[in-house]
Amino acid sequence: MGIVIVGSVALDTVETPAGRVDEAVGGAATYASLAAALLTRPVSVVGVVGGDFPDEHLSMLQARGVDIGGIERAEGRTFRWVGRYHDDMVGRDTLDTQLNVFADFRPHIPEALRTESHLFLANIQPGLQFSVLDQMDRPEVTLLDTMNFWITGALTELRRVMARVDVLVVNDEEARMLTGHRSIHEAGRALLDLGPRFAVVKKGEHGANLYGPDGLFLCPAYPVTDVVDPTGAGDSFAGGLIGSLAGASTLSPESLRRAMVVGTAVASFCVEGFGVQGLLRADRAGLQERYQRLRELTGIPPL
Amino acid sequence: MGIVIVGSVALDTVETPAGRVDEAVGGAATYASLAAALLTRPVSVVGVVGGDFPDEHLSMLQARGVDIGGIERAEGRTFRWVGRYHDDMVGRDTLDTQLNVFADFRPHIPEALRTESHLFLANIQPGLQFSVLDQMDRPEVTLLDTMNFWITGALTELRRVMARVDVLVVNDEEARMLTGHRSIHEAGRALLDLGPRFAVVKKGEHGANLYGPDGLFLCPAYPVTDVVDPTGAGDSFAGGLIGSLAGASTLSPESLRRAMVVGTAVASFCVEGFGVQGLLRADRAGLQERYQRLRELTGIPPL
Repeated sequence: MGIVIVGSVALDTVETPAGRVDEAVGGAATYASLAAALLTRPVSVVGVVGGDFPDEHLSMLQARGVDIGGIERAEGRTFRWVGRYHDDMVGRDTLDTQLNVFADFRPHIPEALRTESHLFLANIQPGLQFSVLDQMDRPEVTLLDTMNFWITGALTELRRVMARVDVLVVNDEEARMLTGHRSIHEAGRALLDLGPRFAVVKKGEHGANLYGPDGLFLCPAYPVTDVVDPTGAGDSFAGGLIGSLAGASTLSPESLRRAMVVGTAVASFCVEGFGVQGLLRADRAGLQERYQRLRELTGIPPL
Repeated sequence: MGIVIVGSVALDTVETPAGRVDEAVGGAATYASLAAALLTRPVSVVGVVGGDFPDEHLSMLQARGVDIGGIERAEGRTFRWVGRYHDDMVGRDTLDTQLNVFADFRPHIPEALRTESHLFLANIQPGLQFSVLDQMDRPEVTLLDTMNFWITGALTELRRVMARVDVLVVNDEEARMLTGHRSIHEAGRALLDLGPRFAVVKKGEHGANLYGPDGLFLCPAYPVTDVVDPTGAGDSFAGGLIGSLAGASTLSPESLRRAMVVGTAVASFCVEGFGVQGLLRADRAGLQERYQRLRELTGIPPL
């Protein structure tokens, strides 16, 4: 029972109304692995960094229980992203994207990781996601993320991947793009026709919906008062989700509801600090406390 | 134990992506009273209509158990509103507003209604809301709605009213305007400093939050797939809320949570039809079913 996470490792420069951070460690696989490692072990990252990637970030991941054996160090510079969030802490502008070594990333799953039980395919080119599925030896649970860029530019490949995964995680805009439905609930249900057994539609500060064969779960957002930096919230949510699932015995409606709320709690820590700083302040006790708080905040008494 | 609802009775012409309705009966007091009468009786409306107001609408209200003795028929034309909803069924443009007899509305609470236990002050000029509070003989529970127009133009009077009510109901934009806080949770908590014992912040398709001395309740929206006309949803929510409270013995955190979910269920019926048609299709059994469904859709299992 271990988790493999395939995705980007990056250096992010981010400006938000709360401040700014320069070349902080980021990337979907970084956030997701730190999140998952809060819940279960082992968690292994498969990704690529350049020669300029500071060793301290790799040490930090290891110290947090993340296996970095699958992070390749390639010649060249690390993937860099520069972004600025709007005053509402929701909208954002990408000011610069330098793919660098990430442009030639061809994920290679080390032999020892191919039998792991849980796989998170973070947002990368769908053809590469497909190649990862081929390398893995039938994981019990696969979780898939993607983005509007691939929905527009690589839909055929993306559909082939979606047909093979257990849980698809997208945001509301992506759900509408993928299905053509304006209603979020129609879109959510229609995602299931594309192949995944379950579909999660993230709505940012408005929580997330889970669609599956047994119906719908409405998951609230955790009431964070001081959002500092939303970067990585979605990846932390996904990492917490698969981390929780890896600790469960089966992929059931109940284990998925629990995993959604755990993911929500993890993401709430993430947005409270710049880069991964918020995640680094999270621990099991803190997650349990926020989980219980969410149960309490949403409890509907009998009629 | 009876409810008095003071507000507009109107003729609405509404266009939405789902179609159009001409001079249908509308107005906050109409929606709220039909909603409240689904939960409890007696429900009395205090409002004004013109000589042109069709008798059939008054008969319809009576047939639904609404006491219309407090609706004054004045010389002149009835309040008319013309609006068009955007494709997202959220944004809307007001194409025309003719206040007509509503411009001179001075609410007079009939003697027999002054001792009623529950009062809903729907959105009218705050000075008039204040005069209603003065006419009532200490109701047990008062619910207050308002709008951006009065927050901008009559804030001093509005503050005097807010300081005297039990529950303030506003939308997220109004909560931010009233408090200056961008964070919805900071805004919600800050509303309590303005005087009400509880504050409800409506978020449309994203549900509603309840703030009170005992903390926060996150109320989901009911998953309506086919929204036909959002007009009156907020007033139906408020009507269902006070209707539920009037059936409870005390204003407790539990009775308020229950009332929020009942209001949500009532509002979900409202948006499924043009004008009041959706509300007219609702009944106790339907509300109970949607209440139970919301409990089920949001249930978080123990960790």
